[in-house]
Amino acid sequence: MTNFGSLQLRLVNSYALAFREARSAVGAGDVLGEAEEFKSVAEAVADCSLVVGTTAVRNRALKQVVKKLGQESADEIRSHLKGGRVALLFGSEKIGLTNDDFSHCHWLLTIPTQAKQISMNLGQAVGVCLYELARGVSEKPSLVKEDPANAGELEKIIQGLYESLKISGYVKPGNDAVSEKKVRRLILRMNLTAMDAKVFLGMVRQIVWKVKQPGSNYPFTL
Amino acid sequence: MTNFGSLQLRLVNSYALAFREARSAVGAGDVLGEAEEFKSVAEAVADCSLVVGTTAVRNRALKQVVKKLGQESADEIRSHLKGGRVALLFGSEKIGLTNDDFSHCHWLLTIPTQAKQISMNLGQAVGVCLYELARGVSEKPSLVKEDPANAGELEKIIQGLYESLKISGYVKPGNDAVSEKKVRRLILRMNLTAMDAKVFLGMVRQIVWKVKQPGSNYPFTL
Repeated sequence: MTNFGSLQLRLVNSYALAFREARSAVGAGDVLGEAEEFKSVAEAVADCSLVVGTTAVRNRALKQVVKKLGQESADEIRSHLKGGRVALLFGSEKIGLTNDDFSHCHWLLTIPTQAKQISMNLGQAVGVCLYELARGVSEKPSLVKEDPANAGELEKIIQGLYESLKISGYVKPGNDAVSEKKVRRLILRMNLTAMDAKVFLGMVRQIVWKVKQPGSNYPFTL
Repeated sequence: MTNFGSLQLRLVNSYALAFREARSAVGAGDVLGEAEEFKSVAEAVADCSLVVGTTAVRNRALKQVVKKLGQESADEIRSHLKGGRVALLFGSEKIGLTNDDFSHCHWLLTIPTQAKQISMNLGQAVGVCLYELARGVSEKPSLVKEDPANAGELEKIIQGLYESLKISGYVKPGNDAVSEKKVRRLILRMNLTAMDAKVFLGMVRQIVWKVKQPGSNYPFTL
């Protein structure tokens, strides 16, 4: 991280013992010392307007866009960095990111490797991704865009919408998690601007209030 | 190494205990199992026609070309791989490559990093270099060239020339190592073809024979 830029380390549910005993490389003590810990991915990425998950797997039924690490995907991230924070999400060495983690991502990033060995060492995967992001910015002029919505703002919409759907009987019993992810992916694909998110959240909140009214048929399903 | 290509691991003066106890990542056992050990850099790179050393240091008085890792330097290595073997030389985690190691290199490669942290973890440095080499080959057509000389062939020239120089009194007492490196760098900069190297070696051998003749003023300096 110190090799390739001024970056911030955030940990989600870190293994406390390993984290306390972790020692940084020479000259990289600040990164570890300033690392922040979070209880959930949602909290960790709340102030980011682009969340990119990393995965070695190419053919998982993810319903999410998977882009190859390279000039093009790096350009997209760099261009986004001019207007907001980007979270690059890495899973644990052993199991990587879960489907639940993926549902917080706008899109996924994969490092092109030989087909016979797609799994990478975590430290090397981080190194390779940051190397690509730090390399010479392309000459393409970046378009001036409106501020994108933060993940934290979007999560309020997602939770509101999800609550409305549950109350409305859209969510089948025992299938809660699946539908929450479905909602999250849907919202992320909208690429809402901060302004639009604010308006949308107002609408969703109004709906939540409405479906909770005693006059409605809640808690009965439609 | 298995992530980015079919590569061969060669070790020079490896720490025997660490090497015996080294365990590979899942699916990468072959690389470690087929690793070859050598007593010197010269032997390890003998069958390579391009030797590239890696270094974090940018301003060492190396008298050698230092190229940045990127499309251009990677293209050069990839283009070379079509006609011969390339050795990518990495030093130890602690001290990197020595000046002596550098003298075996045609040129040096450095990974662009933040100025405040130029030193990289060895595994990450290898990962980043191989990622860059494995990325999409550029569209530039490569020129058909004559076979370049192997480092082993060049080393015979270097040793012959150096011996001639010593006998000729060019090498000052106590300054042996410096001059050998000087000779090596000179020869490597020539970019000899295999054919030219053969002819040159014949010349050098003839000179060595000559300066060793009793009739010459050896061992007296000129």
